[in-house]
Amino acid sequence: MTTFPPPDFTQPKFADFPDARFAPAPADGVLPDGFFSTTNLPTFVRLDGAWIAPREPRMDSGIIMDPDGVLWVREGRRLKKGDMVAVGDKEDGSQGIYVQTQLVPHGVDPDAFTFMSSEVSREKPIDYAHMAKVLIEEKERGGYPIWVTGPALVHSRARTDMSWFIANGYVGALLAGNAVAVHDIEASIYGTTLGMTNTGEITQGGHGLHMRAINMVRAAGSIANAVDQGIITDGIMYECVKHKIPFVLTGSIRDDGPLPDVITDALAAQDAMREHAIKATMAILVATALHAIATGNMLPAFVSQDDGNMRELATICVDSSEFVVSKLKDRGTHQAFGVVTNAQDFMHILRLYVERELDTRGAAARTAAEPAAR
Amino acid sequence: MTTFPPPDFTQPKFADFPDARFAPAPADGVLPDGFFSTTNLPTFVRLDGAWIAPREPRMDSGIIMDPDGVLWVREGRRLKKGDMVAVGDKEDGSQGIYVQTQLVPHGVDPDAFTFMSSEVSREKPIDYAHMAKVLIEEKERGGYPIWVTGPALVHSRARTDMSWFIANGYVGALLAGNAVAVHDIEASIYGTTLGMTNTGEITQGGHGLHMRAINMVRAAGSIANAVDQGIITDGIMYECVKHKIPFVLTGSIRDDGPLPDVITDALAAQDAMREHAIKATMAILVATALHAIATGNMLPAFVSQDDGNMRELATICVDSSEFVVSKLKDRGTHQAFGVVTNAQDFMHILRLYVERELDTRGAAARTAAEPAAR
Amino acid sequence: MTTFPPPDFTQPKFADFPDARFAPAPADGVLPDGFFSTTNLPTFVRLDGAWIAPREPRMDSGIIMDPDGVLWVREGRRLKKGDMVAVGDKEDGSQGIYVQTQLVPHGVDPDAFTFMSSEVSREKPIDYAHMAKVLIEEKERGGYPIWVTGPALVHSRARTDMSWFIANGYVGALLAGNAVAVHDIEASIYGTTLGMTNTGEITQGGHGLHMRAINMVRAAGSIANAVDQGIITDGIMYECVKHKIPFVLTGSIRDDGPLPDVITDALAAQDAMREHAIKATMAILVATALHAIATGNMLPAFVSQDDGNMRELATICVDSSEFVVSKLKDRGTHQAFGVVTNAQDFMHILRLYVERELDTRGAAARTAAEPAAR
Amino acid sequence: MTTFPPPDFTQPKFADFPDARFAPAPADGVLPDGFFSTTNLPTFVRLDGAWIAPREPRMDSGIIMDPDGVLWVREGRRLKKGDMVAVGDKEDGSQGIYVQTQLVPHGVDPDAFTFMSSEVSREKPIDYAHMAKVLIEEKERGGYPIWVTGPALVHSRARTDMSWFIANGYVGALLAGNAVAVHDIEASIYGTTLGMTNTGEITQGGHGLHMRAINMVRAAGSIANAVDQGIITDGIMYECVKHKIPFVLTGSIRDDGPLPDVITDALAAQDAMREHAIKATMAILVATALHAIATGNMLPAFVSQDDGNMRELATICVDSSEFVVSKLKDRGTHQAFGVVTNAQDFMHILRLYVERELDTRGAAARTAAEPAAR
Repeated sequence: MTTFPPPDFTQPKFADFPDARFAPAPADGVLPDGFFSTTNLPTFVRLDGAWIAPREPRMDSGIIMDPDGVLWVREGRRLKKGDMVAVGDKEDGSQGIYVQTQLVPHGVDPDAFTFMSSEVSREKPIDYAHMAKVLIEEKERGGYPIWVTGPALVHSRARTDMSWFIANGYVGALLAGNAVAVHDIEASIYGTTLGMTNTGEITQGGHGLHMRAINMVRAAGSIANAVDQGIITDGIMYECVKHKIPFVLTGSIRDDGPLPDVITDALAAQDAMREHAIKATMAILVATALHAIATGNMLPAFVSQDDGNMRELATICVDSSEFVVSKLKDRGTHQAFGVVTNAQDFMHILRLYVERELDTRGAAARTAAEPAAR
Repeated sequence: MTTFPPPDFTQPKFADFPDARFAPAPADGVLPDGFFSTTNLPTFVRLDGAWIAPREPRMDSGIIMDPDGVLWVREGRRLKKGDMVAVGDKEDGSQGIYVQTQLVPHGVDPDAFTFMSSEVSREKPIDYAHMAKVLIEEKERGGYPIWVTGPALVHSRARTDMSWFIANGYVGALLAGNAVAVHDIEASIYGTTLGMTNTGEITQGGHGLHMRAINMVRAAGSIANAVDQGIITDGIMYECVKHKIPFVLTGSIRDDGPLPDVITDALAAQDAMREHAIKATMAILVATALHAIATGNMLPAFVSQDDGNMRELATICVDSSEFVVSKLKDRGTHQAFGVVTNAQDFMHILRLYVERELDTRGAAARTAAEPAAR
Repeated sequence: MTTFPPPDFTQPKFADFPDARFAPAPADGVLPDGFFSTTNLPTFVRLDGAWIAPREPRMDSGIIMDPDGVLWVREGRRLKKGDMVAVGDKEDGSQGIYVQTQLVPHGVDPDAFTFMSSEVSREKPIDYAHMAKVLIEEKERGGYPIWVTGPALVHSRARTDMSWFIANGYVGALLAGNAVAVHDIEASIYGTTLGMTNTGEITQGGHGLHMRAINMVRAAGSIANAVDQGIITDGIMYECVKHKIPFVLTGSIRDDGPLPDVITDALAAQDAMREHAIKATMAILVATALHAIATGNMLPAFVSQDDGNMRELATICVDSSEFVVSKLKDRGTHQAFGVVTNAQDFMHILRLYVERELDTRGAAARTAAEPAAR
Repeated sequence: MTTFPPPDFTQPKFADFPDARFAPAPADGVLPDGFFSTTNLPTFVRLDGAWIAPREPRMDSGIIMDPDGVLWVREGRRLKKGDMVAVGDKEDGSQGIYVQTQLVPHGVDPDAFTFMSSEVSREKPIDYAHMAKVLIEEKERGGYPIWVTGPALVHSRARTDMSWFIANGYVGALLAGNAVAVHDIEASIYGTTLGMTNTGEITQGGHGLHMRAINMVRAAGSIANAVDQGIITDGIMYECVKHKIPFVLTGSIRDDGPLPDVITDALAAQDAMREHAIKATMAILVATALHAIATGNMLPAFVSQDDGNMRELATICVDSSEFVVSKLKDRGTHQAFGVVTNAQDFMHILRLYVERELDTRGAAARTAAEPAAR
């Protein structure tokens, strides 16, 4: 992963740049004319001659200065009338706002003819060993990997593998929709998803089973209650409850039910997701366009390290087609690394490589420990 | 795997069947007229009263009898002039050739081998003329066609065509998300969508334009206000406001802004959509998985007619891949007719065919009216 | 569009059916146990001997009777405690609720509403355990599994796994094109495919490496010669040569080179492929439309067993999209079982399951053998 | 389209570069070690101090000097022992060979954050007006547009539109496979393609109709004979024969029949295609991966103009998914412009825009002519 220092603001070109200008929000939820529209890249605002990075970076938002002079990146809808908002449309510092572009892809070497230069392709090798190492390192350094998943994950029975990742400490938070939890809970109660067994057979009367599962959880009052009452006895939601891994279930117009834990208001749901996006040090987006792009919208492209440097926020996007990954990049999440495969297979192999890497490390550790043991 | 015995040729129905007929190949590599064209299914040929399976079965070939009376399946190109070839076009034994259909999946015709039996395929012809007639008839009988669209419709500039359908009375209600309206309004104000011009060029600083468009409408208070104030001067939302066509904009976690008209609570949004779904007599779902499946969930598969009969609720689902249509059907909207194409092209051709049909009807009406006019 | 009358409830079968039963909602937004879960099809509920269609039909909801005795289809979340809800799980009228299935497409079960009835979908589970068993059994009974592969298999580094299957006796014959062998040999000589390393990096000047690899084999005279001379030292073609597994490399207009072993005449190539197709007892088609459909064209759908019965010829078709499998079926290879995933991942997991199954059998064999060992 | 002058070889950096080196082919069809592997970009070879562009440029080939000192780009398989072949692996001129990279895409502006920067996407607008103009201009200046089409074109009834383009002078040559001609001829004789009618209905016994159509043409001896004998009375092949537009039908292992005109040897087929690729001034590739990539392999990325400048060879690639276009680019045809849509719709709209443009030009011409007429 790319690591890079903050800009060197002692360079001559920065010397003559002015402080950023601010203008008040004309009404609640409305930005002033000419507001600076943020990206997900490292951004610095000049205040009294110093270049300050606003907190909680994300794209498509404004930069506000609170009464204490602290800068925040904030969605327009959350503004109050009179909030002071940075204005400008240049990203080169000439209006007091500077955006660092190290993470923007540079395309192919413009001076060479090559094959295989496309960004996302099912023909590119998938480096599971590397992904497994990154994930293990995240766990070791106390990172906060967020997993964002679509229902295909459960539907196609990667459920066991996802449960394993939760139970073994590789999940900081789970962001998903109603359907993921519904399919998962139907699988726990009835052994089917949308009435289909785990070998793909369709059961008689199966079309009603997800409705019955939802109804049982609604009767229990919450997923956690349903776990406590022994209604839900295994799976993704079960492991989240047991291991106290936070989950955000966001509502959509497709939802049946919904389950009682679902946040049905889209803006409240965004706020709940953003609490985790702010903390994220890695993002794994599996088999979902809606949730992946929603998360991409609110995720910085970088992580600020303790040593003052920044590093790319490792973002893996898994889908059956190149389209979702390209779409995610086309919405500005350029740092996304695309894996074009079936979600079920991705989960299974990633887990396998994590287990292998742990075995290797365990063996190495034992070997290293042996002389001492003698 | 399916295992099955050969046919029981002692059954009465086989008693009166004749031996197969053979005719000589008229030239090297040429089959005789009326040759029997093979399938890949178990096949039996009646010779002297016995049913014999030819050797080396495959599809798209002939059945030849060699000089020793042995039957072979052979490609036409491998024939020599004079080779004796089985003739016939029935597979039920009545011409001495019987094809066993146990392995044919149920669907289309459970008793016949066919090509092109898949339900949804980009290789199927798209009958625009038929769709245009259905749409015109819906308008004429006062039907309520609901259109459910994704942002690709606007993004790829089918915007003009969609506006035409609204302005000309072919839209009962429009169900969409925040993004459709945002792109449409950005196009009206700035001439771009997500900063891309209508020829696909990317504009400098363009990534903020949709945020500026949203902000202007938020300041105006509603889309209708923005139309009244001359901020929005053309396009989809403009035509809806001008022609008083109801629209439902439902929120999602991907939304920027959102626009003030957006219903952000998923359940309130479902209720608003359902008001129109209840009245729907036709549904056209273009370039959206989320909204299409949400609408499919709440749409009956049929319309009750005044005469007491029911008819299928015509449901057209347009997407670039077979997947969305299959997914819609897999969620129970079996009546959906899939059109696998680009949304922009679909809109353009459908409009063209509607205009042609109207021209034809107009000409016919004028012709019919002419004698009276004399 | 299909038009049809309501059911004829004077038919004898309806005579003995009871009125529908109703139970009260136990809480707001919660359906009673055993509630009837609706579909989008015409539905009739027997009340005092009359069959009534509830208003506002949709799927995934309950049927409630309001205080005036009017029936409504209503989402569970909208119920109030005590609302009377129809119960039952039969749709044939025997519990007082009848669903009309005219609109259900034939397929799966022509008389039932189901979800997930499409034939090929990335959302269907992939039963690797079953495929592994079938493959092991083929080996044990001396079957002849033919593998038909596209270049993605090598390009994306499933090369090691394919080599393993060849070396371990799971491949009767390999049918492929020039490109599979070219990429495989480039990988053996240079460690790249089309100049891309196995971690996806593009090498300087790499675009010529496949041409250099081809040229070396052309100079050697054949792939076998190149193996003998130590030019090719590992990989798919190497294992075929070492283990005397027959391979057919067929030419196409896309070919560079070609390699000396390639059969450039399409008809001679078909004849060479057919020699193996005739013997095939199983077919595994991975990541190739051209070769898969070519093989499908010449493959019977069945195998004749020694016991006189026939069984389906197990045909697995692996591709990244549903399209290739549907196309194969649309060309008559109805028996194909579709696996929608990345070729690399398919190969890796299939091998893993074969190894697991062998371990299990080995352990079982050892356990069985143990008493004798005592 | 990009137009650009040849390199300025008077620049100082070229002063010290040596002449290119040549080495003899060690055997028929074998290149010497270290041969220079060509690209599709403008390439110049230093001979006696002058920079010469070899004739008939294409990628993946060698550069040979014939006995008269003329340079040719030639596939390795076509070499004779002793042919003199340029050697080297640098493209910057330092070994006497210089490749001009103006046509290599430079990727996104590396210093700006943008949306919609992917190269190929169904979300990009399709500029039919521009394509129509380019095509009309090609006709007007006597260009040689080659059309390369897959069977989907016929299968989905773009057949009428393709016939129109041929009959009206927009096709220099048609490159396709057996299947295009087979479906087209089945449609002319039986009104079906693979037994499916033009409204998508499957006909009884229809699976044999393409075989019967093939057989009739085989009996006639050639497609031209079948046209002359009144067997084929309309469609793509009919118009080619009537208007003497050359066509190349290349064989593949998928072919049924094949038709008598099909070139079954892949290398002979490549040579036949290349005769047209050398002359091409534009390429339109519709709904075919195999033929598109085969043509891309042998097509220069540029056209040499009479004025000494070069221009990009306009290459349009139409497919239902982004994948084929990306794959084409990944094989080096970087100049391809991708149109992601259904082939049927593409053909229909392109024709419509050509007709509209002609109408506009006709009206303009009439208006311009009017004053003189007064």
